[in-house]
This record gives sequence, structure tokens and C-alpha cells, in this order.
Amino acid sequence: MPVSSTPPLHQLHAWQAATLLARRELSAVDLVRACLKRISEREPQVHAFVQLGADAALARARELDAGAVHGLLHGLPLGVKDLFDTFDLPTAYGSSIYAEQQPTVDAAAVALCREAGAVLLGKTVTTELANMYPGETRNPHNPQHTPGGSSSGSAAAVADGMLPLALGTQTAGSLIRPAAFCGVVGYKPSHNRVPKAGVKSLSETLDTVGGFGRSVRDVALLGAVLTGDARLADPTAFEQKAAPRIGWCQTPEWAQADADTQQAWAQAEKLLAGHGTPLVLPDSLTGLIAVQKAVQAFETARSLSHERLHHRHQLSTPLQALIADGMAISGETHALNLQVTASARQRAQALFDGCDVIIAPSSIGEAPAGLDGTGDPLFCRSWTLLGLPCVHLPFARGQNGLPVGLQLVGAYGEDHRLLAAAHWVHQRLTG
Amino acid sequence: MPVSSTPPLHQLHAWQAATLLARRELSAVDLVRACLKRISEREPQVHAFVQLGADAALARARELDAGAVHGLLHGLPLGVKDLFDTFDLPTAYGSSIYAEQQPTVDAAAVALCREAGAVLLGKTVTTELANMYPGETRNPHNPQHTPGGSSSGSAAAVADGMLPLALGTQTAGSLIRPAAFCGVVGYKPSHNRVPKAGVKSLSETLDTVGGFGRSVRDVALLGAVLTGDARLADPTAFEQKAAPRIGWCQTPEWAQADADTQQAWAQAEKLLAGHGTPLVLPDSLTGLIAVQKAVQAFETARSLSHERLHHRHQLSTPLQALIADGMAISGETHALNLQVTASARQRAQALFDGCDVIIAPSSIGEAPAGLDGTGDPLFCRSWTLLGLPCVHLPFARGQNGLPVGLQLVGAYGEDHRLLAAAHWVHQRLTG
Repeated sequence: MPVSSTPPLHQLHAWQAATLLARRELSAVDLVRACLKRISEREPQVHAFVQLGADAALARARELDAGAVHGLLHGLPLGVKDLFDTFDLPTAYGSSIYAEQQPTVDAAAVALCREAGAVLLGKTVTTELANMYPGETRNPHNPQHTPGGSSSGSAAAVADGMLPLALGTQTAGSLIRPAAFCGVVGYKPSHNRVPKAGVKSLSETLDTVGGFGRSVRDVALLGAVLTGDARLADPTAFEQKAAPRIGWCQTPEWAQADADTQQAWAQAEKLLAGHGTPLVLPDSLTGLIAVQKAVQAFETARSLSHERLHHRHQLSTPLQALIADGMAISGETHALNLQVTASARQRAQALFDGCDVIIAPSSIGEAPAGLDGTGDPLFCRSWTLLGLPCVHLPFARGQNGLPVGLQLVGAYGEDHRLLAAAHWVHQRLTG
Repeated sequence: MPVSSTPPLHQLHAWQAATLLARRELSAVDLVRACLKRISEREPQVHAFVQLGADAALARARELDAGAVHGLLHGLPLGVKDLFDTFDLPTAYGSSIYAEQQPTVDAAAVALCREAGAVLLGKTVTTELANMYPGETRNPHNPQHTPGGSSSGSAAAVADGMLPLALGTQTAGSLIRPAAFCGVVGYKPSHNRVPKAGVKSLSETLDTVGGFGRSVRDVALLGAVLTGDARLADPTAFEQKAAPRIGWCQTPEWAQADADTQQAWAQAEKLLAGHGTPLVLPDSLTGLIAVQKAVQAFETARSLSHERLHHRHQLSTPLQALIADGMAISGETHALNLQVTASARQRAQALFDGCDVIIAPSSIGEAPAGLDGTGDPLFCRSWTLLGLPCVHLPFARGQNGLPVGLQLVGAYGEDHRLLAAAHWVHQRLTG
């Protein structure tokens, strides 16, 4: 949409706000104030934040308004999942073990965003140590439903107009699933393109830093800063007329997709008619969910060794169970799983011989009712194991009126192609 | 050597001490005291430690002596590179930026070692943020020479009889090079087999946790704990009579090896005569040093974003230069380098079609004179980029009487085969 037809400030897309900020047609202070106002109205229902830094954010916004524009995120309010260390706000990783923790240093991704002009507005709710046990956040579309997890607060805050951009992480489905449940664009970059220094480590093979926005251009702007790849922020990439070649991959788990996801799939097929061909995963790439689960459990159990040994009573029952599962897996089995992972990542390149991007389910369906879980990452596990970049595109509603969408998956390291294709596809899906 | 012909306590190999401790023929308190005595005599010359935890170590040793034996490292004193967080000793990462830092949680690798019965004796010197700028440590064989780095204190302490085992990390050559310069066995496991949680992150693609011992069996014991792979601690693996198939790989950098390394190579050829065949790297694996340098610079510069932005004046000139180099590399180039790395790792599997292990140079030669640098990781960079497990084997002396050796390289995830072969080879090299 053109910048001229702007919605209320707190609903601006990040790229729109960035354009206005760069032209000095919008001040960072006004944008921060609009977000803070929205937060004050909605936070009692949504519970997206564990810490707000309102005064520091306004002070930083004033500084930015008074100085030159020299970063892609100049003046944009940013939410940061409370799994990232921040030098000026406490960081608890969603666990009472870290309730009193005040890091002295920013996580690398946070520092990169601040360097690019982003204004840290607050720390957003994560599930316990980015695992299954939920935080306080509710789905902004219906407070009786989960927002998804583990990046619960980041997705909910962006969805609810509290923030234009937020950082998250994914180890199984912690970016794409909450994006789907909250109806925002979620972006998981290619594995290890974004530094993880200062993010609580769970699984080196899987953990990936990414983020949320209201449009593909928004997450591309964030992605350009996080990856240092200027192609992601190139506006001409989003003007392409040629259709990407789409591989339609229902995945071997398709039978578990519910009526809402099936409906969204049919809708997408109709809206994108004629673009692409069905893609069936080769047998060598169909057993990856079990491998992802085992790698995650093994690595999480060992990464959390201090917590396991010294703070067991402060870990939730489900996390204790996951750790027990992980400790029961031998290092011999894990070595095989790492070999399988490396081979699968290499074989996955051939998926893109006949297509530019893959379209696939993001979630089983709408956000489930209830706040005692965060839903199933089923449709994300394999892509995470493969380390491929993914973008969730919201465009439909399910039977309960909650958001539904699909994800696009790109070739490793080809995030710029994925995001350009995702913009093209999302425009057609949302009319 | 058989356990019966034991040297002084502080010179015991870790596996020998572990055997005596398990049989209750040696107490943890006596072993800790022997190491502390050696440290008190030699530390003023060697400067291997930044922190000693003598009282806590003795208290822990008493606990272990009073309880049951139930871990592979029961009662073994351990040194930990000051790049790993420890809840009971300060952790400065070799940088004044972190001079006051007291972590609340152990790094995962430290917690795993303590769980297995290791007694943390102290934190060992690392170069500045595990990069080039040296710490205070001197080569125990000649204090006018560097011990290598970045795991300087760990290698020197083990070499000098202060400790039987120590933890380190490698991003370019930070385990194998100091092992070579100090004349101890250094082990870099397959990439990401050992959790890095709680270790200061520099380059996710390269950083690898490993350690030092006085024999292959020592580092295998440590490796079994770190990887959870019981095969590494299986004594029968070290009794094999059959010779491993050795691929002799001088590498494309061979012309830069000096007379001492060439001499060691000739000596190894003689001692291992008839075992193995020459191995020439295919063209597709010969340009990896430049890729490793670029990946390290790009990722280090971004991982250290907070330090770069807020503490620049506390970074050494060489580290500032590396960071500037890294920031000058585009995210586009880095994406290509990550793709090259993934492909090279896959292609490297075929190196082991005709051999079980590769023998290759560890260093250009002996430890260089002078304490203003830590030597060149030239012969380690490619193997680190490939993520392959490596073991340095000391067995010779150079023209200055300092240690020289060679490294063995194994297939990814086949650490148990590498270590068994390394034991076989080392026995023949050291006669």
C-alpha cells in the first residue's frame, strides 16, 4: 500500500514508518508514543511484555530525531524476546532461575538492530527457556486461545499494533507457529546467517534468530540488518513482475492438517492458480521429524546442564520430561543424527532445481483454545532441521475467526529470493 | 604405560589417575594437592591461570573421596579456559570489558565435566576474546616462546604438570596449535558435538569445544563426557591390533612448513612405514583457508557487536582490525561462504573412502620466539572449516628443543574411530 494512505501510527508497517521517518515526515518520538499508548490500552489483556523500557525508549527516540538518519531501522520501535540479553533491561529467559538477571551486554542481534536505529521498547514474553511451558501471553484475536510459542510476546505484540517489529527465535517452530496463530509475517532466516551470541543457547544445530512484522517488506528490512545482506532491503526486489516458480509441498504430515489449513491451501491454490507444480519430498527427506525431535532433546538437555543439575525444582514438568528424554539419547545416536542432518541439508538443495520457493503448511490449523500449551510445531520441524529460510504469510481465517496462513520455504542462503517471492505471493493471497 | 609404573602424581595421565581413583588407590584430595603444589612452584614462570579455586577444589575433592565413584572424571582436577562461564569463579574472556564478571551459571561443558566428577581447579588464560592478542602465559618448555593460543593457559598447564585435563575451544587453530607448541595431546571434536552454551560466542560456524590431556586416552575420556558417546571411553578401543588406514595429506600449504615440521613428517613416515597412502586434496577442497578467514571475520565482527559499539577502546588493535575486516564483508558474500562451507563439508566425506584417518601438519613448526603473538593457525583453518574432528599428537623436538608433532583428522561424527586410530599411531610415534 502507498505511504500516502497511512493507517493510525501504531498500525503502520515497519517499512512505511521507516520511509516516513527517513523523510522526517514522522518523528521517532511520536511513533514510540503511539506504540506506548497502544500498549497501555491493550497490555492488560494481551500480556505480551515482561519488561517495558518506556523512558529509555523515549529518550533514545529524541536522540534519533535530533540526529542524522543513518540506519535501516532508524526510529522504529522494537520488541525483543526475553531470550536475548539486553544491557539495559533484565533478561529472565522465561524462567525463575534467571528472575534477577541483568546482563551487562546486548545480544549481538539486539546490538545490530540498535546500531541500525531501532528503539528497544521492551522485552517480550518467551515460554520457559523457549520450550513448551507457556508464559502469560494471550492471543490478541481471542484471549482464550494461545498466541503460540515460544516467541509468544513478540508475535502477539506485532499482531496487536503494539510494535511494528520484534525479534524471536526458532528451534522447532517458535517463529512460524506464533506468526501463524497471531496472523503476522514471521521470518526464520537460513540457519546461522544471524549471530546467536547473547541468546540463551538450547540447540546449536537448530536455534535460529529471526523476527516478526506486518508485511514481508517489514521482516525483510529487519533481515537486512540481522544478516548484513543489503539485497533484502532493496525496494526493487519487491517490484518484480515475474511470478516465482512455486513448489506446492503438502508434506508427509498433510493428513494432520485440519479443515482450516486445508481450506487455506485450497484458497491459495485458487489465488495462485497456474503458478507452480506439486512437489513431493523424496523418501530421503521424509523421516526428518523424528530426527529433529531427537536432536532438539539431546542438545537441549546438555545445553541446560547447569539448570538440570542445580535448579531442577525450578524447571517445569514438561521441560524436565524433555530433558530426561534427551539425556536418554546416547552420544552415539546423536552423532548419527548429526550425520543424517548434514546429508539431508545437502540433499535439500535439489528441491529447488525445479522451483524458486516451496509453499507448505505452517500449522495444523488456527491457534488452539486454552493457555496451557502453545500448539504443535509439527509442520515446522523438518524445515528447521534442514536450516532453510521460511516466511509465514497470513491471509485467511479459520472457523473460529482466528488467523490461518501458509509458509514459504527458500533454498539455503537464498533469503533474498525467498523474501522477494514471498512479497509477490503475499500480495496475491491478500488481494 | 601400565598403571603400576606410575610417575609423580602431578604427572599422571588422566586415564591412569582415573583408574587409581576408581580403585580408591589414590584420593582426589592427594591428587588436587599434588597439582596445587606443582602450580605454586611453576605458576610464577608459566602464568597459566587467571583464577585458582584451591579451597573449593579441595572441598569438592573431600566430598568425592567420601562418596561413591560414579563418573568418568571422578576426582580429576580440571582447568577451564576463561572463555567458559563458571558459577563459582569469575570469567573475563581475556578482556578488560569483562574484568568484573561473575556468571551465575556454568557453561554446559563445565557442568557436564563436574557432573562426571571433575574438580574445577582454576580458570586458564585465554587470549583476548579467544582471538590473536596474547595473555600472560609462557611456553613451559621455554618462557621466551609463545604457548600458542587462544587456549594458551589450558595447554601450558597440562604440559607443565599442573593439571591432567583442561578445556579449550578452537575457531581457527586454538586447540591444535597450543597443543603442538606445548607438546600435549589436543582434541577438537566434530563441530557441534559438544554444547557451546555458556562459552563466549565468536563464530557459530567454527567455534568448537574440546580439550587437552597427556595422552590420547586422556582426551578420549574427556571427549566421552563432553559428547556423551561411551565408545570414546571404551578401553577395548585402545587395544586394537589392526593398523588404521592412514591418508598422508601434506596439504596445499606444505611449502610453508618449516624444517622442524618436515623433519617430524619424515620421522612419522619412517615410524609408520607401510601404513597408508598419500592423499592429495581435490581441487574443490583446496581454497578453504580464505573462506575460513572470511567466515571467522564476518561472524566475529557481528558476534562482538556490543563490544564493537560500546567498548571499542577496550579492544586490542589487532582485534579492532579483524572486526573492521569482518564488517567490510557483505552479508551477500557471507551467504555464499556458508554455502561453500556446507558443500565442502559434504564433499569432505569422500576423503575417508580410502582411509580411516588423515595425518597432516599441525603447525608451521615449533612455537615461535616472542610473546607478542601466538603463532599461525595456517594448518588448522581448513579442518576447522570442514568441522572434522582433529587430534594433535606430540612426538618430536625441533631445532630449539621445543615440541613438534602432527595431527590426525577423522570423518565427521566418527570421533571414536579417530581416537582409537590416534592411540595406535601415537604409540608407534612415541615408541
